[in-house]
Amino acid sequence: MAIEKLARVNREEEGIAAVLGILKQRFGERFQTGQAIREQHAHTTTYIPLQPPDGVAFPESTQEVAEIVSACAAHRVPVIPFGVGTSLEGHVNAPGGGISIDMGRMNRVLAVHAEDLDCTVEPGVTREQLNTYLRDTGLFFPIDPGANATLGGMAATRASGTNAVRYGTMRDNVMALTAVMADGRIVRTGRRARKSSAGYDLTRLIVGSEGTLGVITSLTLKLYGIPQAISGGVCPFPSLERACEAVIATIQMGIPVARIEIVNQLQMKAMIGYSRLDYPESPCLFLEFHGSEAGVAEQAGSFGEIAADLGGGPFRWTAVAEERAALWKARHDAYWSSLTLRPGARGLSTDVCVPISRLAECIAETEADIDRMGLIAPIVGHAGDGNFHVLVLIDMDSAEEIARAEEFVARLNRRAIAMDGTCTGEHGIGQGKSPFLVEEHGEGVEVMKAVKAALDPLGIMNPGKIFPA
Amino acid sequence: MAIEKLARVNREEEGIAAVLGILKQRFGERFQTGQAIREQHAHTTTYIPLQPPDGVAFPESTQEVAEIVSACAAHRVPVIPFGVGTSLEGHVNAPGGGISIDMGRMNRVLAVHAEDLDCTVEPGVTREQLNTYLRDTGLFFPIDPGANATLGGMAATRASGTNAVRYGTMRDNVMALTAVMADGRIVRTGRRARKSSAGYDLTRLIVGSEGTLGVITSLTLKLYGIPQAISGGVCPFPSLERACEAVIATIQMGIPVARIEIVNQLQMKAMIGYSRLDYPESPCLFLEFHGSEAGVAEQAGSFGEIAADLGGGPFRWTAVAEERAALWKARHDAYWSSLTLRPGARGLSTDVCVPISRLAECIAETEADIDRMGLIAPIVGHAGDGNFHVLVLIDMDSAEEIARAEEFVARLNRRAIAMDGTCTGEHGIGQGKSPFLVEEHGEGVEVMKAVKAALDPLGIMNPGKIFPA
Repeated sequence: MAIEKLARVNREEEGIAAVLGILKQRFGERFQTGQAIREQHAHTTTYIPLQPPDGVAFPESTQEVAEIVSACAAHRVPVIPFGVGTSLEGHVNAPGGGISIDMGRMNRVLAVHAEDLDCTVEPGVTREQLNTYLRDTGLFFPIDPGANATLGGMAATRASGTNAVRYGTMRDNVMALTAVMADGRIVRTGRRARKSSAGYDLTRLIVGSEGTLGVITSLTLKLYGIPQAISGGVCPFPSLERACEAVIATIQMGIPVARIEIVNQLQMKAMIGYSRLDYPESPCLFLEFHGSEAGVAEQAGSFGEIAADLGGGPFRWTAVAEERAALWKARHDAYWSSLTLRPGARGLSTDVCVPISRLAECIAETEADIDRMGLIAPIVGHAGDGNFHVLVLIDMDSAEEIARAEEFVARLNRRAIAMDGTCTGEHGIGQGKSPFLVEEHGEGVEVMKAVKAALDPLGIMNPGKIFPA
Repeated sequence: MAIEKLARVNREEEGIAAVLGILKQRFGERFQTGQAIREQHAHTTTYIPLQPPDGVAFPESTQEVAEIVSACAAHRVPVIPFGVGTSLEGHVNAPGGGISIDMGRMNRVLAVHAEDLDCTVEPGVTREQLNTYLRDTGLFFPIDPGANATLGGMAATRASGTNAVRYGTMRDNVMALTAVMADGRIVRTGRRARKSSAGYDLTRLIVGSEGTLGVITSLTLKLYGIPQAISGGVCPFPSLERACEAVIATIQMGIPVARIEIVNQLQMKAMIGYSRLDYPESPCLFLEFHGSEAGVAEQAGSFGEIAADLGGGPFRWTAVAEERAALWKARHDAYWSSLTLRPGARGLSTDVCVPISRLAECIAETEADIDRMGLIAPIVGHAGDGNFHVLVLIDMDSAEEIARAEEFVARLNRRAIAMDGTCTGEHGIGQGKSPFLVEEHGEGVEVMKAVKAALDPLGIMNPGKIFPA
C-alpha cells in the first residue's frame, strides 16, 4: 500500500523533542531511540511500509504507562502500544511519530483463580506463555490466532482464530481490563463477576479499539478446563460448496465442534507439499472435537455421517495426541506453506467474514476473481464463523501487481459487506482497512468518532488507525 | 425508596407542551396523554414510586421513532423507551417528565435465517412470542429472564436469567442492532457476520445502556438448535456451602449444564407449599441438561457423582417433558411463592453477582444479615454465574421497615463489590442502584459520563437513570 493512501497525521516536532527528553531522563535504558529498535517497533506482518516511532519505552507497571501517556498528553505526542508486532494492518506504525510503548516487560501472570476459571495477566503475556503457566492447573486459555501474540494485542484487535466457533473471540473472553486513558487516568472496566449489568460495557468498548482509546495494562480472562478427550481429523470434499454445506449442517445440528477449518484446493496443494500430508488435492475441512471420550467419538461419528451424505470423505480422525498435533501443525503452517507457491513473494492477508449461508458463494466468487485477475492466492478459513483469509502472493517490486492485488482486496471487502458481512473478522482495521469502515458502518462511524473525540480529545492515542483520513 | 433519594431531572415545561402538540398532531390516536395510560407506562416491578411521563407514543417503524426523538431533541424533552414494564429498577420512570415510547406496535419478527442461526426482530417482540414463532424451525432463543419481557428491553438492561451459564447473556446474543440516537440519527451497529473486528463495538456499547444512549428499534439475535434431548432434576444438599461446592465442581469439570439454580431453605419452604413439591426443606440445586440422549444421561450421571461426593442427593432427574416442565414452573414461580411467606407484603428484589468461589460465603453472610435485621427474605440464584436474588418482603406502610430493607440492600451490594463482584448481574442500574455505580466502577464512571455527554449532549435520553445525581 502506498504511503500516500494512508490517513495522514501531522508531526508535532517540538512536543516530540520535549517528550524524548522527559522519557530519557525518567526511564534511562528503558527508553530507546536507536534506529534499529524504532524500525523493529514499526514492524507488522504486512506489506504496509514502515513508519517508525521516535522512541520506544519499556514500562514495568500500569503506573509507569500512566506516566508515559501523561507526558505525551502534555505535549500532544502520539502513543502507540506494542505487543510483539504480529498485527496485520499496520497497527503499530507511527504515521505522526511518537512513542511506542513496548509491553515486553509487563509479562507477568498476576493471578489465577482456578475455582472461578479466570486469571489476570499483564498485557505482554503471550498466549503460549499463559498456557504453559497454566499447564498444572488443568485449565487453558483457548483463543488461538495462530501467531504467538500478546494477550494485550489480541484484546486490542478483538482477535480470535481457529477455535472461536466453540470458545468465542477476545470479545467474549476478556472479563475486565485496566486501561490508561488519553489523559493518563487509570480505569478498571469491570470486576471478576461472570456477568454484570452495571453501566456501560467499557470492557467491550476498549476490546477492539486498537489502542485508539486507551492503553491496556492488565486483562482478566476466562479460562476453561482442558477437555478430558480431544480428537481431530481431516475430511476431503468434492467441492468447496459441499464442504460449506457440511459446516452449516454441523453447526445447525449443534455438534459442539472446537475447530472447523476450511482449506481450498490450492492451499491443500501447498500444505501437502510443505507438511507432507497424505490427502487428496481437494477442498478439505480440518476438525477438532473436545469433550468426554464418548462425547468426542459421538461428535466425530455425527460429523462423518453429515460428510458422507454430502459426498465427502473418507473422514479420517484420531484421538492420538501426536497425530492430531501433526495435523494442526500443518494447518498452522498454512502461511509458510503458501509462500512456497511463489518463492520470493510477500503475502498480503485478507480477513472477510460473512454469514455462513453465504460462505460458499463468497469463496466461489473470490476464487473466480483470483483467476480473472491472474493472482496466486490460496484460501483458508474459520468456516464455522464464516471467516476466511486469502493470502495474495505478490511481487513487491511490481507496482502494477500491488495495485492489482489492492483492487482484488477492495472487491473482496465490498463483496463481503454486500453479503451482510464484514471486511475484518479478526485482524482489525488498522491502517489497511480504514477505507472500508464507512462502507461497512455508515453513520455508525460518526458515533465512533464522537466517542473517540470524547475520550481522546487531543487525538494522541494511536492516531491514523481505524478512522479514514 | 423515597423519591428525594433519586437523581433529580428538571422539567422543561415549555418544551414538553410544544412536543405534546407536535406528537398529537403527527400520531393522532397513537399518541396518548390520559392519566391511566401514563401511570401504566411508569409501572415497574419495583417499590420505587411512579413518575409518569407526559405522553405515550406508539410508533410503528424506526423512522417514526426517529421523528419522535427528533421532536424531543428540538425541545429538550426526555425520551423514555418502554417494552412491557417488567424492569426492576425504575427504568421506565420519567423523573423529568417527557415522552414514553411504547414499542408494543413494533413487534414483528423481520427475518429468520435458519442456516445462519440468527433472526432480526423489532424491539417489542417478547421472548415467548419469538420462541412461538420459531417453533417449526427447530431453533430457539435461549435467554430467559423469567418475565416475558420484550427483547428490546432485555437488550437495554443486558438481561440474562436461568440459562446464561450455558448460552450467555444478551451481551453475547445480540449480534447487531439498530438504534435511534439522541439527535434522531439512525445507526445500524453491525451486520450478520458471527464476528467482526471492524471498529468500536457499538452493539455492546448500546446493550446495557438502559435507553440512555439511544432507542433500540431492531435487533439481530443468535439462535440455537433445540437440543435433541433435555433432562432436568433437583438435588438437595445438607448446606448451602455444599451446594455451592457442587456448582464449582460441575463448572470446573466442564459439564455443559444448561441451568444450575440455587434455592435456599426458606425459598424451598415457600416453593414446596406453593407448587406442592415433594422435596425436603433444605437448600437445593435445580438443574437442566441439553444435548444428545446419551449426552444428557452422561451429564446427569457426572453431576450425581459430584453431589454424592459432597453429601448431597438423592439427585432425581427426568427426561420426561411434563415432569421437567413442572419443576421449572416451580422455579419460575419462586417470586409468587415467596409472596405467600408474608401476604400483603411487596417484594424488593436484589441482584448481586460474585465470582463463584465467593458465592457460598456471600450467601451465608447475607442470610446472617437477614436474620440479624429481622427481615423475611428468601433467596434464589443463578449459581453457575454467581448471581443471586434476595427477595425482601416489606410492609410498604412501614417507613422504618423500608429504611431497614434499604440498609440491608446497601450492605449486600457493598459485600458483593468487596468480593470483586457487581451490584447487578442482570437487572441493570436504573434509578435504584445508581448510588452503587461509583463504588463499583470508580473512575470508570467518568469515562461512561464522557461517552454519555458525547452521544447525548442535551441529556434527553432516559435521564435520571444509571448515573447518580
